Amino acid sequence: MVGVVGGKERMMLLQERLRTIPIILGSKSPRRSALLQAMEIDFDVIVRETQETFESGDSPDSIVQAIAKEKLNQFNEECANGHLVICADTIVVAPNGEILGKPNDAANAAEMIQSLSRKCHKVYTGVAFGYRNIRVSFSECTKVWLALLDAEEIAFYVERYHPIDKAGAYGIQEWIGKIGVEKIEGSYENVIGLPTARLQKELKEVFRYKN
Amino acid sequence: MVGVVGGKERMMLLQERLRTIPIILGSKSPRRSALLQAMEIDFDVIVRETQETFESGDSPDSIVQAIAKEKLNQFNEECANGHLVICADTIVVAPNGEILGKPNDAANAAEMIQSLSRKCHKVYTGVAFGYRNIRVSFSECTKVWLALLDAEEIAFYVERYHPIDKAGAYGIQEWIGKIGVEKIEGSYENVIGLPTARLQKELKEVFRYKN
Repeated sequence: MVGVVGGKERMMLLQERLRTIPIILGSKSPRRSALLQAMEIDFDVIVRETQETFESGDSPDSIVQAIAKEKLNQFNEECANGHLVICADTIVVAPNGEILGKPNDAANAAEMIQSLSRKCHKVYTGVAFGYRNIRVSFSECTKVWLALLDAEEIAFYVERYHPIDKAGAYGIQEWIGKIGVEKIEGSYENVIGLPTARLQKELKEVFRYKN
Repeated sequence: MVGVVGGKERMMLLQERLRTIPIILGSKSPRRSALLQAMEIDFDVIVRETQETFESGDSPDSIVQAIAKEKLNQFNEECANGHLVICADTIVVAPNGEILGKPNDAANAAEMIQSLSRKCHKVYTGVAFGYRNIRVSFSECTKVWLALLDAEEIAFYVERYHPIDKAGAYGIQEWIGKIGVEKIEGSYENVIGLPTARLQKELKEVFRYKN
């Protein structure tokens, strides 16, 4: 009777199943590492440089998926050797449709945040993972409404938190997210850089039901 | 010219202004303490017991505001003495409209989470703060969509995280929030227990413009 409860086959928790597989997170973002840890998935971080280029006419969805897949392509050998490799890319689309990357300096960071103040912008994260000959990719979009931020709030944030490494020049999990994000629609973790619930679902499809 | 920049009066950051006022958080929730800290507001925690009773016909909005105000009433003396006192209350409204409190035990916690699986529920937090003769209260509602959670995911969460102290038997900031919350609509911090952006806005109304 072990493994069968109430007539249904008892499934192994995804997290237990994944403990038997070597996992690589192909991202240098400490925030993605923290999110994957919070999912209780063990992994090593390996970063390989890729060109994050895209055609200006492409949709944000296809851009982030293409970049995540391109990052994953650097790990084909590890996938073939039985590693699960997870890569991701996040972009911020300003209210005017412009794609915001990382700011050049503090003044540029303040400008970026000012351009998002009192408006709704969109954050897209694309994820690609590979294991043996399996490749899965997807993307999620979250809408974020910022409050009217005062000049001194923006200056305080930029000076104290140095958001130079963040697309759109802010971290929703930091002070400015607490005091300035009135509302979101979508996944909160997606804004930080990894749509964790969607990732759990997609990993379950591969590792719990098909293997 | 100090204090005037570009023709506009330069405002003091709310957080700087509040450093001159003794602040009390009237809540024993460690999650509310963490959120207020993340707002960079300094405070002491003082907990006073109140009866959290309400009429079953009342709306969730009015229930959480009434309980928060009742909690604040225990601190009238401190308010009169120049303390800023902040109180809050959070409830979870199940998909069937039932108000979920804290679970009785692990089995009840698992039942509660099961009842939220694959559906949308609502989380309401009411906040009341007082300072001298000023009293302000408000509430926020966030919609939360949970994924289809497997029995073993629920069992793993309840056993490992003991969500007995949480209304609705889950913490969105914990493992189950990462792997199970597909989408929210509203403030993420409101689900944890304190709508921080709204609180910043309401505190600014009192402490930056009127004082």
